[in-house]
Amino acid sequence: MSRQGTRLDSKKVNSELFTLTYGALVSQLMKDYENVEDVNKQLERMGYNIGIRLIEDFLARTGCGRCYDFRDTAEKIQMAFRIYLGVSPTVANWSPAADEFSLQFETNPLTEFVELPDHCLNLKYANMLTGVIRGACEMVQMEVSAYFVQDQLKGDNVTEIRVKFIKRLEDAIPAGED
Amino acid sequence: MSRQGTRLDSKKVNSELFTLTYGALVSQLMKDYENVEDVNKQLERMGYNIGIRLIEDFLARTGCGRCYDFRDTAEKIQMAFRIYLGVSPTVANWSPAADEFSLQFETNPLTEFVELPDHCLNLKYANMLTGVIRGACEMVQMEVSAYFVQDQLKGDNVTEIRVKFIKRLEDAIPAGED
Repeated sequence: MSRQGTRLDSKKVNSELFTLTYGALVSQLMKDYENVEDVNKQLERMGYNIGIRLIEDFLARTGCGRCYDFRDTAEKIQMAFRIYLGVSPTVANWSPAADEFSLQFETNPLTEFVELPDHCLNLKYANMLTGVIRGACEMVQMEVSAYFVQDQLKGDNVTEIRVKFIKRLEDAIPAGED
Repeated sequence: MSRQGTRLDSKKVNSELFTLTYGALVSQLMKDYENVEDVNKQLERMGYNIGIRLIEDFLARTGCGRCYDFRDTAEKIQMAFRIYLGVSPTVANWSPAADEFSLQFETNPLTEFVELPDHCLNLKYANMLTGVIRGACEMVQMEVSAYFVQDQLKGDNVTEIRVKFIKRLEDAIPAGED
């Protein structure tokens, strides 16, 4: 996966195709799993696996170094959404200790043509995104939790993902070195 | 789905995120189905469902009218790949009767980081694309078949999708009218 950022920068696909493909994935999971909670978990897990790969591209493309603090992390996650999904969420609702913030979306490309049927009201349709955040942060030694607290699909005014700092992970040291 | 093309034209997502999401979809299907042939079929069927929706966006965005002939169709499919996947396949290998052509891809964004393990050599990894072509054409009253004949994932020099005209479908006439 070592490539020049410049080459990739020009590579974009139309969001409609992406949205429909994501919809096919969610539909398939709805067929596969007995209950909606399992689908939510599976989407998060898939996102996690995507996040641990996408971070490498993000670092190569942006040249970002270590985050100074969690506010810096928030800005970089915001930047990642702009790069990868073409939307710029608002960073809001900081906790007093500055260890939690929200990403608020006016529109979510993943849900553009989506309406949830009545039996899916507990589905976290775009839950892959929370997994991507968790996976990407973990790869830069930061354990976070991320979860939807508002969702326009459920009638909320905005879509909001809450991101909470849990702990800094120790750098893994290869066996035999110290 | 009636929207202004101009609004959507600016909406692009990064191809890496799309590629990884498509990979998650294929992996899930590999877990779900007992054999690779069923995965190929399921990918084609998902593509078909995407195609029958994507064509509306394509027509609105491009203002394309009816195709004069199958060569015209080939050019429009080529244009659609440029719009939706950011790649421009070469149209080649026309049959003498001009009812079959190939789309040849130097690179396929769907397979960028993919290597097929040995037990998946019959997997048509990007088979969703053939379904998209079939579904989109059917919605403009043209039955075609589309299938991979070469695939860089299998060691071929190019990736090639063959598209074959089958028949023109009658315009559906609503019941009670004639």
